[in-house]
Amino acid sequence: MAVTMGDASGVGPEIAVRAFAEGLLGSDSVIYGDVAVLKRAAAVFGLNVQIRMVRDLDEAADGALNVRDLARLRAEQVTPGVMSREAGAAALAYVDCATRDALAGKVAGVVTLPMNKEATRLSRPDFQGHTEFIAGLCGVRDFAMMLTVPEVAVTHVSAHVSLREAIERVEPVRIRKVIDLTHEALSRFIERPRIAVCGLNPHAGEHGLFGTEDEEIIRPTIERAAADGLDVSGPRPADTVFRQAIHLDRYDAVVCMYHDQGHAPMKLYGFERGVNVTIGLPIVRTSVDHGTAFDIAWQGKAFTDSLGHALDYAWKLAGRVD
Amino acid sequence: MAVTMGDASGVGPEIAVRAFAEGLLGSDSVIYGDVAVLKRAAAVFGLNVQIRMVRDLDEAADGALNVRDLARLRAEQVTPGVMSREAGAAALAYVDCATRDALAGKVAGVVTLPMNKEATRLSRPDFQGHTEFIAGLCGVRDFAMMLTVPEVAVTHVSAHVSLREAIERVEPVRIRKVIDLTHEALSRFIERPRIAVCGLNPHAGEHGLFGTEDEEIIRPTIERAAADGLDVSGPRPADTVFRQAIHLDRYDAVVCMYHDQGHAPMKLYGFERGVNVTIGLPIVRTSVDHGTAFDIAWQGKAFTDSLGHALDYAWKLAGRVD
Repeated sequence: MAVTMGDASGVGPEIAVRAFAEGLLGSDSVIYGDVAVLKRAAAVFGLNVQIRMVRDLDEAADGALNVRDLARLRAEQVTPGVMSREAGAAALAYVDCATRDALAGKVAGVVTLPMNKEATRLSRPDFQGHTEFIAGLCGVRDFAMMLTVPEVAVTHVSAHVSLREAIERVEPVRIRKVIDLTHEALSRFIERPRIAVCGLNPHAGEHGLFGTEDEEIIRPTIERAAADGLDVSGPRPADTVFRQAIHLDRYDAVVCMYHDQGHAPMKLYGFERGVNVTIGLPIVRTSVDHGTAFDIAWQGKAFTDSLGHALDYAWKLAGRVD
Repeated sequence: MAVTMGDASGVGPEIAVRAFAEGLLGSDSVIYGDVAVLKRAAAVFGLNVQIRMVRDLDEAADGALNVRDLARLRAEQVTPGVMSREAGAAALAYVDCATRDALAGKVAGVVTLPMNKEATRLSRPDFQGHTEFIAGLCGVRDFAMMLTVPEVAVTHVSAHVSLREAIERVEPVRIRKVIDLTHEALSRFIERPRIAVCGLNPHAGEHGLFGTEDEEIIRPTIERAAADGLDVSGPRPADTVFRQAIHLDRYDAVVCMYHDQGHAPMKLYGFERGVNVTIGLPIVRTSVDHGTAFDIAWQGKAFTDSLGHALDYAWKLAGRVD
């Protein structure tokens, strides 16, 4: 599995060396990054990390931090917590190389540590975002973000649009596409994933009492997907479906109608255990559920747990379930 | 504190006698209900419950289950799990009596066990709901429901309306009213409650990128309330504010713009610890965070925790903080 080091001014390098010291990175993982920066991070945290430079995964070994060294940065170029053109450009180079290696089948997938969009824009003003860049390399336009904790995966029919616009996007083609992407992703490790679809309105409209979309748009779309053989049900009220999925194990995934419907419960419930998955790509890609955190970078405060979870999830998607 | 027994066919009587056996109901609580039903419930669960019939709270004593017997039901009239006209009418009579006693200052407040709306409608077709009935007796029209867990209280600018209609209701007068009701309620036991207000759009609109309501309607309303001396801030993104309130203790309350924005995270996080509070009333009223649960009534499966929390919260609102 490729693990990209992320922006060197952020928490990425520190998480990489500390995760290695904690035993999270074995011979099945290679960091795509800069050896000079990782060595400095190991020194800062007093970690005795043996670094092994590898060209491809065959050269990786246990007992060493295996690094695909892209040699973009010198150690002294990095100032923790300070945005830099060099670190932003380097972070993009790691992702570029890892994604190409995944597309070529050299690695099982890509797990990304955080980039800083503004830093990367200093050298690439047209940079849209981490996920959009990967999707572009893959030649894919229909992709979506899936928020996961071990108990459930959550997808959204729309994301960064106004709530008014989100309501307009509640239409059959979009809903069905997200149901299908969710089904495809989870089918990699669950035989017949159980998908619940949220209603748009409170109590999923309570049989048409509050809004018509649940009965007129969402329910027929679910019924067609079910008729096509998917284990999909709903529309379900957003205030009960997450408990049913997480605590009662009734569903493997929840498809939400808009950003906050899924993000609000998941970010409260899953903090520090969350993994973001990009679905719809020809490669496996997971990401930690936090940003570059410049304010605490290189201070030993960043959690390594999220990287561990992101690696576990990537292996599940790649078909190796522990 | 008055505790109404709720619909006798549901989990109310069982919760009352089991909560007493667990030490949750002392001489400071009186059940408004039916002695015959409570005796039968005690027998079903093999509990040796001494029942003391009281006319008012002065007669209540420790070591006994103090009951204001409204003598509406005979024990054999109750079939657990089966809706009945008699039980529905009786449940309303308990609430009626307890609310009047609270208005007269005879009890510190009312904690309600669940009613069944359909059962009560069998004798009172115009029955709107438990809370509406209490508000009507109090002569109040501006009331709201507050969802609470010990760490945070959550209110909503709208509740049971479509999401389209909820967006229309995001306007200054409504938002300010809910902020004020929230402030008033929490001021009973917190000197200067810290109130966060959610944005309507994802990321609270990200400075106008997704929707205009956050900057044009919500922010000025918050600023006016803050200028009037309230500790209120926002608009805050719904996907981070609950964690900030609950895990980082930054806020005592969160005002949400619509039903699912608050209900989805709170029902996932707070299940079995949640207390519903009716704010805006001249009396204290809290309620357990579950329904009559006819499917498990009188089977020993219902949790008593929620009644314990509802009692604690009622005492906090009444000014007796343990």
